[in-house]
Amino acid sequence: MPEDEFARAAAAIAAAGRRLDRFGWVPATAGNISVRLAGDRVAITRSGGHKGFLGPEGVIQVGLDGAARRAGDRPSAETGLHCGIYRRHPGAGAVLHGHSVPATVLSRLAGETITLAGYELLKAFPGLPTHEAAVALPVFDNDQDIGRLQARIEARWEAGPAPPGYLLRGHGIYVWGADMPQALLRLEAVEFMLRCELEARRLGP
Amino acid sequence: MPEDEFARAAAAIAAAGRRLDRFGWVPATAGNISVRLAGDRVAITRSGGHKGFLGPEGVIQVGLDGAARRAGDRPSAETGLHCGIYRRHPGAGAVLHGHSVPATVLSRLAGETITLAGYELLKAFPGLPTHEAAVALPVFDNDQDIGRLQARIEARWEAGPAPPGYLLRGHGIYVWGADMPQALLRLEAVEFMLRCELEARRLGP
Amino acid sequence: MPEDEFARAAAAIAAAGRRLDRFGWVPATAGNISVRLAGDRVAITRSGGHKGFLGPEGVIQVGLDGAARRAGDRPSAETGLHCGIYRRHPGAGAVLHGHSVPATVLSRLAGETITLAGYELLKAFPGLPTHEAAVALPVFDNDQDIGRLQARIEARWEAGPAPPGYLLRGHGIYVWGADMPQALLRLEAVEFMLRCELEARRLGP
Amino acid sequence: MPEDEFARAAAAIAAAGRRLDRFGWVPATAGNISVRLAGDRVAITRSGGHKGFLGPEGVIQVGLDGAARRAGDRPSAETGLHCGIYRRHPGAGAVLHGHSVPATVLSRLAGETITLAGYELLKAFPGLPTHEAAVALPVFDNDQDIGRLQARIEARWEAGPAPPGYLLRGHGIYVWGADMPQALLRLEAVEFMLRCELEARRLGP
Repeated sequence: MPEDEFARAAAAIAAAGRRLDRFGWVPATAGNISVRLAGDRVAITRSGGHKGFLGPEGVIQVGLDGAARRAGDRPSAETGLHCGIYRRHPGAGAVLHGHSVPATVLSRLAGETITLAGYELLKAFPGLPTHEAAVALPVFDNDQDIGRLQARIEARWEAGPAPPGYLLRGHGIYVWGADMPQALLRLEAVEFMLRCELEARRLGP
Repeated sequence: MPEDEFARAAAAIAAAGRRLDRFGWVPATAGNISVRLAGDRVAITRSGGHKGFLGPEGVIQVGLDGAARRAGDRPSAETGLHCGIYRRHPGAGAVLHGHSVPATVLSRLAGETITLAGYELLKAFPGLPTHEAAVALPVFDNDQDIGRLQARIEARWEAGPAPPGYLLRGHGIYVWGADMPQALLRLEAVEFMLRCELEARRLGP
Repeated sequence: MPEDEFARAAAAIAAAGRRLDRFGWVPATAGNISVRLAGDRVAITRSGGHKGFLGPEGVIQVGLDGAARRAGDRPSAETGLHCGIYRRHPGAGAVLHGHSVPATVLSRLAGETITLAGYELLKAFPGLPTHEAAVALPVFDNDQDIGRLQARIEARWEAGPAPPGYLLRGHGIYVWGADMPQALLRLEAVEFMLRCELEARRLGP
Repeated sequence: MPEDEFARAAAAIAAAGRRLDRFGWVPATAGNISVRLAGDRVAITRSGGHKGFLGPEGVIQVGLDGAARRAGDRPSAETGLHCGIYRRHPGAGAVLHGHSVPATVLSRLAGETITLAGYELLKAFPGLPTHEAAVALPVFDNDQDIGRLQARIEARWEAGPAPPGYLLRGHGIYVWGADMPQALLRLEAVEFMLRCELEARRLGP
């Protein structure tokens, strides 16, 4: 039943929010979390509200166009980024947007890409069975016009293969996977590697 | 009933203290937390005591002049700063004074202001709907004479628009909001940005 | 009864996983944990899965050759390293492989050894009753060919005395002890000292 | 009844151990905790064992000379330092020895003293009602001969006024107070200031 599917998705989203909050990755009202539902719908955290303390009312349904399915529900501005991932990547079943200190600091210093290489944890990413590969995470300038931002993101996806994640400058990271467990594992792996990068940079060139 | 209102405020204050303690923002007996009550009264943490472990006796009532309403209650020295905020800012419903490592370290290095710019989390502050704005947090020298300190703070407020927060050098941060949830969100947002500033400074000029 | 022994070992492994996760030492699916059983068998975390959330199905049995004892069980690639430790060191009763930020960052910068000296916590290691000794942890280049990696590790053990632990470059640390409590104490001690080393390096030469 | 007094002291010690462990200040078997009892006796953590997981058997009784009161009880080597504090300072009711990363790193870099100045949290220390004072914490070279170490500590106390705490190089910090709550507050205050010192040093001269 669709209600059961939505209830399970909302529970998974709330649990993910608590784990992200434990790590300090959803400070204040930052971050958002979504799960793909059947019938071209998405369960996603509503606008505002602290993602570490989600109750049942904290998750709403939208279509792949980002529009709310129930009258009165307010999607966050960034819903469009989640839906852009689901439309482009049929295998994406869950999307996590976190807001950590390393992601924020490193994205402000980066150019168009942050490359992670030489880490065993790269194995969390598709097509990378060895630590000798590298993941090149795109970094996009932040933009309050989500439509315009999504267009730039899609242009980068058009230009060539890209990993299942990207950074928004000063605004955190988006990571996705086939389901919530995979998305959580990938986010945890990337955040670990970003923390290592930040520590390594402190030690000088 | 006023007793119910006070009981609810005391519970909100104790819960806020536990969250601040989880972050390490109320070490030892540092920090204090207050909520505006009806009738020109304020519920505030009493002097001494660890703010992460507040029981019902840990919260007292004062007037907007900072004087205790019940015989024998001992307001902390900094009660005057809370009341100064409530007198000056009619929209302030809750005030949080936290004492984090980034706030302490950065305030000791700063001049009269710490400016936070380019962070998505700036949207937690009034009048700043985009990340392209900046928040200029005043920094005041610490002073054991709270009346004298409050006069300097009010002089800065007189001089021009100011955000709903300020730093005391080597002594932490004051943040306020319309109610406790908004105050907590603003404090979490500011502390996140201060942590980013500290990390960025470590990476050099 | 062997089933009881295995059940107790699996419980100890799950508890160890929760403590390592609390420290952030088993991010994503990284890390693995094992306990020696009677009869040349080993209880070890299965491939994949987050080590902070192990259920009873998360632990399998292998022989000292690393092969699964039950049809369908999938040992992780690194099982060979755990078994190599048990074959070489008869006194080893538990092995912990953690994946912390300091271990990852420092191993990437190190040569063939990381030396820890002058720490009181060195007393956690055999033959070091005073803080004036030093522990020289071998550092090996990571390798997806576990057999080849184990051969290099055994060559180092052949070359002379070595402490009950080593680092894999960019891949974390292996530590062992007579039983799980001793292995946990040693891992906690080493990770503390690595954190101190990382902090000290940040302060310059 | 003395048994009740000891039981209450053991419970306070275990609770303190859990809080210190939450902060990461009692890694592996490091650290120890004691409370003064009537009749020139002391309740103190026994040798070995993780101080974050103390059960009733984890606390023993010793005399002011450091000798165990019950046959078979093994005091830790550092019991002599606790007793030295109780003999010298009649007002000391509880002693905490913690082992944090900042205390370890800064003590290895320091000379004979670490001076903390300009922090509001200095008010946790006796005779310092303002933030404009300073606390000069003595730093002693570590020594496995506790009697010899205690003699050097007493020589420093003879030489002039000293704060209720000192550091052992590479080995952590000792702090005391009139009772366990005061000792815990002082330790939390000092550790916060040491964390600030470490952060400030990272930012350069």
